[in-house]
Amino acid sequence: MSHTGAASAPGDSLTFADDLRDVAKGVNVCLDALLPLPMGGEKRVVEAMRYSALDGGKRLRPFLAVASADLFDVPHVQSLRAGAAVEMVHCYSLIHDDLPAMDDDDLRRGRPTCHKAFDEATAILAGDALLTRAFSVLSDEATHPSGDTRARLIAALAEAAGAEGMVGGQMLDLLAEQSDLGEGEIERLQALKTGKLLAVSCQIGGMLGQADAAALEDLKTYGLCLGAAFQIADDLLDLEATESDLGKATGKDGAAGKATFVSLHGPERARKRAKTLVDQAVAALSRFGETAEPLRAAAAFTVDRRS
Amino acid sequence: MSHTGAASAPGDSLTFADDLRDVAKGVNVCLDALLPLPMGGEKRVVEAMRYSALDGGKRLRPFLAVASADLFDVPHVQSLRAGAAVEMVHCYSLIHDDLPAMDDDDLRRGRPTCHKAFDEATAILAGDALLTRAFSVLSDEATHPSGDTRARLIAALAEAAGAEGMVGGQMLDLLAEQSDLGEGEIERLQALKTGKLLAVSCQIGGMLGQADAAALEDLKTYGLCLGAAFQIADDLLDLEATESDLGKATGKDGAAGKATFVSLHGPERARKRAKTLVDQAVAALSRFGETAEPLRAAAAFTVDRRS
Repeated sequence: MSHTGAASAPGDSLTFADDLRDVAKGVNVCLDALLPLPMGGEKRVVEAMRYSALDGGKRLRPFLAVASADLFDVPHVQSLRAGAAVEMVHCYSLIHDDLPAMDDDDLRRGRPTCHKAFDEATAILAGDALLTRAFSVLSDEATHPSGDTRARLIAALAEAAGAEGMVGGQMLDLLAEQSDLGEGEIERLQALKTGKLLAVSCQIGGMLGQADAAALEDLKTYGLCLGAAFQIADDLLDLEATESDLGKATGKDGAAGKATFVSLHGPERARKRAKTLVDQAVAALSRFGETAEPLRAAAAFTVDRRS
Repeated sequence: MSHTGAASAPGDSLTFADDLRDVAKGVNVCLDALLPLPMGGEKRVVEAMRYSALDGGKRLRPFLAVASADLFDVPHVQSLRAGAAVEMVHCYSLIHDDLPAMDDDDLRRGRPTCHKAFDEATAILAGDALLTRAFSVLSDEATHPSGDTRARLIAALAEAAGAEGMVGGQMLDLLAEQSDLGEGEIERLQALKTGKLLAVSCQIGGMLGQADAAALEDLKTYGLCLGAAFQIADDLLDLEATESDLGKATGKDGAAGKATFVSLHGPERARKRAKTLVDQAVAALSRFGETAEPLRAAAAFTVDRRS
């Protein structure tokens, strides 16, 4: 990562926290520049986009894009733009998921959700425009000089975000409130809803660096395992944390009767499963050597985090 | 167009109706193939996408893409895909605009709107996924062999659809319910809300054929003038037509107190203005000669249509 030339020790969470903060700073500058306020009356929709996209999230997806691109010495000006595009897709999905017709959440990261701070119509439009802007950012020469590479990034992001990915996962999640899912179905739902976007963050980093098919496949495996571990850790936090710790309503999944790995097997087995997934994520990075330390540290962080 | 080798006479509305129907057939086949039903539980969101995208609209945007691409002898397999992508963006915007938080419409083209036929959450997700799919279709090599061209199509569509285009126009439209707009502001709103997507349909056709900058500018002018004329014709229809003719609620804009060219200046001046715009649209096509007859006929149709 950018702040140090030395490789960090595996699982070094202090170094990882620094790395994550570095990328967050870079991507926040990038997002700020990519979402300029217009002069006219449609300012309101851009204000809502900025409200939700510049809200101080952890920026895990941009981190994964930048750390994966670093394996191939991609300039940060490219990987931060690609990371910003994935983050826009993530932020749009949070805005729409929080809507009354969906999960109906009033708080997100300790602040009113977009439709509470603005209104429902503005929130729907802000989400739509963030999704659209993500593809426009990837289509720009500043993200990569090769049109073929840019088109490839767009194809990958669209597949991860659309009906075969994140949107499909959210659909399954809404349907799951009315049915009992088994373990396989839960894992599929979560791979679609969160795993694919985390995986594509890594793949996009590799694509920027012209990674070969085998390396891209390993990055995808890493991202999917990380995503699955992340989700179990999230469900554990949901079970344990208080509302004030997370800045959002907790225990909601339990209240809605949604099955999770934690609710099916209890917290102890869930913790073990998350650790196995982290091991699998790390194993997928074996070809990359020391340059992949930030990605290994991210995997360890996933199950150790407190928020 | 595909059904005849002979050039049609200017303003020949019968030939135009045939042309439009030909493209609609082609694009419906294309949309059907591009939106396959998955096996899994997220089938519901794809069913909602198909419900709204395969509903028998006029397919004016695909027509413009194909007719503009025909000026440069672009294979229909390419221009129909590009047209299908623009149509997906159009259909997503209708789904979201019809939501209770937006225009709150129960009927669209004579059928229940997407959120009435399914539910609000599914409709939001179906719109999101159609928008995403549009970019995925454009990013695919089947749309154009050159990555640079594909990235260019995506950049143009994203600009026309996002906060600086259609979404910005819808935001202005919602805000307009609370304020009195002047003529200039109404024209700007409508250029954003509908004009830019019609214009980009034409531009995309040209881009597929490697049109030069001047030709693309003329196609844009044609599309924007056509869009402005189309909007005035729409407002005139809204004033005159009965609900059963249009298959949707009419007179809504008047009831919501929204200013239009028609409400500001009356139907007679509006009709004149629409004709002037059609003349400007046709004038922008002067460089193209006889191959542009279908586009000229489309301009004439815009102000003569009954629905």
